[in-house]
Amino acid sequence: MHKIPVGVLGASGYAGRELCQLVLAHPSLELTFATANERRGQLATIGGRDVRFIAGEDAPLASAELVFSALPHGASAEWVSRAAGEGCRVVDLSSDLRPGNGHPGNAPYGLTELERPKIPEAMVVANPGCYPTAILLALAPYLTRGMVEAQAAISIVAASGVTGAGASPRSDLLFAEVVEDYRAYAVGNGHRHLPEMRAMVHELGADVDLIFTPHLLPVSRGILATITVPLAAPLADAMEPLRSAYDLEPFVEITDRPPSLRDVVGRNVVRVHAMSLPNVRRPTLLIISAIDNLMKGAAGQAVQNGNLMLGVPEGQGLPS
Amino acid sequence: MHKIPVGVLGASGYAGRELCQLVLAHPSLELTFATANERRGQLATIGGRDVRFIAGEDAPLASAELVFSALPHGASAEWVSRAAGEGCRVVDLSSDLRPGNGHPGNAPYGLTELERPKIPEAMVVANPGCYPTAILLALAPYLTRGMVEAQAAISIVAASGVTGAGASPRSDLLFAEVVEDYRAYAVGNGHRHLPEMRAMVHELGADVDLIFTPHLLPVSRGILATITVPLAAPLADAMEPLRSAYDLEPFVEITDRPPSLRDVVGRNVVRVHAMSLPNVRRPTLLIISAIDNLMKGAAGQAVQNGNLMLGVPEGQGLPS
Amino acid sequence: MHKIPVGVLGASGYAGRELCQLVLAHPSLELTFATANERRGQLATIGGRDVRFIAGEDAPLASAELVFSALPHGASAEWVSRAAGEGCRVVDLSSDLRPGNGHPGNAPYGLTELERPKIPEAMVVANPGCYPTAILLALAPYLTRGMVEAQAAISIVAASGVTGAGASPRSDLLFAEVVEDYRAYAVGNGHRHLPEMRAMVHELGADVDLIFTPHLLPVSRGILATITVPLAAPLADAMEPLRSAYDLEPFVEITDRPPSLRDVVGRNVVRVHAMSLPNVRRPTLLIISAIDNLMKGAAGQAVQNGNLMLGVPEGQGLPS
Amino acid sequence: MHKIPVGVLGASGYAGRELCQLVLAHPSLELTFATANERRGQLATIGGRDVRFIAGEDAPLASAELVFSALPHGASAEWVSRAAGEGCRVVDLSSDLRPGNGHPGNAPYGLTELERPKIPEAMVVANPGCYPTAILLALAPYLTRGMVEAQAAISIVAASGVTGAGASPRSDLLFAEVVEDYRAYAVGNGHRHLPEMRAMVHELGADVDLIFTPHLLPVSRGILATITVPLAAPLADAMEPLRSAYDLEPFVEITDRPPSLRDVVGRNVVRVHAMSLPNVRRPTLLIISAIDNLMKGAAGQAVQNGNLMLGVPEGQGLPS
Repeated sequence: MHKIPVGVLGASGYAGRELCQLVLAHPSLELTFATANERRGQLATIGGRDVRFIAGEDAPLASAELVFSALPHGASAEWVSRAAGEGCRVVDLSSDLRPGNGHPGNAPYGLTELERPKIPEAMVVANPGCYPTAILLALAPYLTRGMVEAQAAISIVAASGVTGAGASPRSDLLFAEVVEDYRAYAVGNGHRHLPEMRAMVHELGADVDLIFTPHLLPVSRGILATITVPLAAPLADAMEPLRSAYDLEPFVEITDRPPSLRDVVGRNVVRVHAMSLPNVRRPTLLIISAIDNLMKGAAGQAVQNGNLMLGVPEGQGLPS
Repeated sequence: MHKIPVGVLGASGYAGRELCQLVLAHPSLELTFATANERRGQLATIGGRDVRFIAGEDAPLASAELVFSALPHGASAEWVSRAAGEGCRVVDLSSDLRPGNGHPGNAPYGLTELERPKIPEAMVVANPGCYPTAILLALAPYLTRGMVEAQAAISIVAASGVTGAGASPRSDLLFAEVVEDYRAYAVGNGHRHLPEMRAMVHELGADVDLIFTPHLLPVSRGILATITVPLAAPLADAMEPLRSAYDLEPFVEITDRPPSLRDVVGRNVVRVHAMSLPNVRRPTLLIISAIDNLMKGAAGQAVQNGNLMLGVPEGQGLPS
Repeated sequence: MHKIPVGVLGASGYAGRELCQLVLAHPSLELTFATANERRGQLATIGGRDVRFIAGEDAPLASAELVFSALPHGASAEWVSRAAGEGCRVVDLSSDLRPGNGHPGNAPYGLTELERPKIPEAMVVANPGCYPTAILLALAPYLTRGMVEAQAAISIVAASGVTGAGASPRSDLLFAEVVEDYRAYAVGNGHRHLPEMRAMVHELGADVDLIFTPHLLPVSRGILATITVPLAAPLADAMEPLRSAYDLEPFVEITDRPPSLRDVVGRNVVRVHAMSLPNVRRPTLLIISAIDNLMKGAAGQAVQNGNLMLGVPEGQGLPS
Repeated sequence: MHKIPVGVLGASGYAGRELCQLVLAHPSLELTFATANERRGQLATIGGRDVRFIAGEDAPLASAELVFSALPHGASAEWVSRAAGEGCRVVDLSSDLRPGNGHPGNAPYGLTELERPKIPEAMVVANPGCYPTAILLALAPYLTRGMVEAQAAISIVAASGVTGAGASPRSDLLFAEVVEDYRAYAVGNGHRHLPEMRAMVHELGADVDLIFTPHLLPVSRGILATITVPLAAPLADAMEPLRSAYDLEPFVEITDRPPSLRDVVGRNVVRVHAMSLPNVRRPTLLIISAIDNLMKGAAGQAVQNGNLMLGVPEGQGLPS
């Protein structure tokens, strides 16, 4: 059977390797090239298969119908243009083309469940960041229905495994530095994902502020976000907006109990729980949301978008 | 030199062992007995020394000037009475006598930095819970000065290492269940420490609600609390209230950067950082606070209180 | 399509849950019951599916063509008899029927690659222990060809993740006890798997002694065995016996470099590397072998055997 | 009171920081400088104190009575010469001057318990590697008494925490690569510590071969070595040689049960257990030995040697 040729740019990082693994196991896709400049020429074992990395300059872009770019932020946009210039469609996993980053581009934002109609026809899709995926999918049903108190501050305390920081060698991510530790980072205003979330919250029609405090967990994969939302009015059934928004979504799991990382790691899903808080005078919602940062937070959602772009069933090749 | 005889009730749990270790290394204290009913007769190596556990019934209570009780919640109060009846002074690490637990007792709450004047004369001190220690010390300077918006909800997202759940065998705390996971628990209204915190917040004169969401971390020790506080008015210098409240406190460390677990594990300190949040229309404070749950959150603070009760220098025998 | 009904006895332990997961995802098998006496009536989520545990007494044994028993050692043999009495074929994962345990039974030993011809017709198969699987598959090609020095002692230093010790609550397997630690256990002569290995080594025709020193690793899954073998004569190509013995075996991977746990976790394979040691006067072989203790070391190999018994392709339903 | 001025070269690695911490807490020593070229000018918090790193070129060598060099292998020897040229005495923690490395130097080997008489007068001491410390101290009592079978191969399977590999950023030591993994490395003949151990075994008068297989553990600190020793004759009491050799040694702990990493981490000790193996026809000894690789395996032993060189009590400033 003919398979659709697909390339991966930036294949040696964690998201890049996960992309290769998903493509290699995908029934309709075929990996035609995988670039990794610093490891060009090297053979890597990914998902039990041998993959030879090539330099970006040597990538036969025109041979691929679709290219996934897992290149670093700042370096990706140029390669997206090159690939598009060669006639490839592109899913860009970097932040370069995402909303809130000052880029005037018109690539739709690939938060699939919210933006599905725009994806199939897009030449280029800006795949969301991992934190925004976990957080925006959890918040959207409440934001779009006007349930959140106007001008209130939503407090988002999130924690991520270390693969969220990439595979480049960094002293502060060595095993001996991370084990038995836990800490906040990019506190206040500093995280790259904050403008992305603010832009999307605005686009969803909500007039709220976001407080985002990410933390580094001593685990390899997974994001869990604990979100406190001031409500415009008490909610009789806190879970109902999630259920009605995502009833038919195969990659959104609404659960009666708070999710844990273990529930989602290795799977292309977001798992969400919500409750109205008792014993608090101002009506307040607590949402807890979990994803695998490399799956629904990166490579899995990229394949989900790629499937839509290529006319393949949306969930094909995705472990759920 | 004469040392003061001290006993430990419930010595086989994590807090109990930590207490034994601190007492054994303490220049003015001497461990006269250590009880552990289920392990009675067994020899344990604690801090490089052999300790023989005895049954509670066999404890020579009257031989001790001070008793630390690390017995389980519910079982401790009775032993506190028995020890007090024998003339011992007691530091009770259980929740039995703490505020908010419906107990009419008059044991002062041993959050040392806030309640110091009441400790030296007390016959019995109710040692605070681990989460309340990390959270109340961080919040108190703002609460007592009326800086927090009235009737607002303070959102506290906290994470604890597994020793916070005790040393009893539980399937859900086995290594294979905890490693590579992270999850919230006791969500909503469920944690034993919430009434304790509410009672103390009330006592500090603040009319606010608390939202408390604890999480289980795959680390052995440490608590980190990330606290979002709606302010009555913008704060010019978010750190100043901490600095002026704790300037002379040896066990409170005010830091310019957010603390990590690694900064505090093994030491009897709370480490706190605070900042006013930018780009948020309603004035909001973010506080991050860290302790070692077995030190400042349990055994260390108990010894700090015991020192005060016995007329020993407050910091003696405490690693800071 | 008709699926073959299969039951799991002792489904709440780590091996039992892994068995349920494999059966639930198996294209030819169907899970008809899963017993767990202490958790009877409870619903467990296994592999994304809900499984209701029932009591052993309530298990409709006769409705299953094959039963996997993951009951504890000592308790399993009786249930194997009951199931066989109801006409079920059985794969017993306990040590009860394995060689070396004093049991006179005639159940073949299900180390599939060595005993394959006996499996299809067997009514009951004794599934090997996890350590013996990793070790005997690595040693067999050298033992059967007379390459090992007669009467020599083979030194086996092995390390296992904590799931090897089961899912029952034990204080010494709590996260806080295992993390950042590593230690030998059952040193000398103490491990249940040693008589099993000795019996099989004897059956393979070798007159050698075994020294077996297992260690507990702070990981959840995986066994790695480092084996030092005195040779009868120098070996020109240390890997050749492995290659010729296992050339056609899909679940044995012979590798040019020492395997790591990461190479095998989640897959039903043993991965083996061997080398002749330089700078050692007596010819000596070093073998390093790795498996996932719950897959090739337990549930995976059990399904491999079950497939053979049921006439299903041997590798069906097994991630390799 | 006057303290002895001491410097640390290469202070930003794990051993260097541990050295600084020990010197800062040492009652007789004073840290006059700490070099770290790549981090020159930076302030580090070590043991609760601020340490300013300077460039090696800026180190006032002549101001120190003793210098500890924790510089990388290959780079250290030159600095040892420079420091000695300035009149400093030196403890070199690199492998540059150790036996077996082809260096003609006459620096005594600082395995203190075996070489104590040579240390006080030495200008330069070659501090042992971490693995050799754990292994040679365990083996020496048997080697020197001729208890080991001549020309036999001693099999040493050892496992180390990741700080043994240093603090330089390396992709393969990132948390996400190490957690949940375990593997052998430098298999066969490859480890730098093997010639060092061979040279010392020869010096101890034994004619034996060594097989050394190190493994990487997912822990931050600690080494555990599991050693199989062919004996010349059966031993009535396997522990006796250890006891009589080390009876008076404060930093050697002979234990009735196998040691674990947890028993030794943070302390300057080696802990050893030995047993004669039952059910093995050729008399064979099993020894298990554990150290903290950064304490007795590096900085702790360096201070132990430094104390002897400076006429300070050998154990001063060392947590045991």
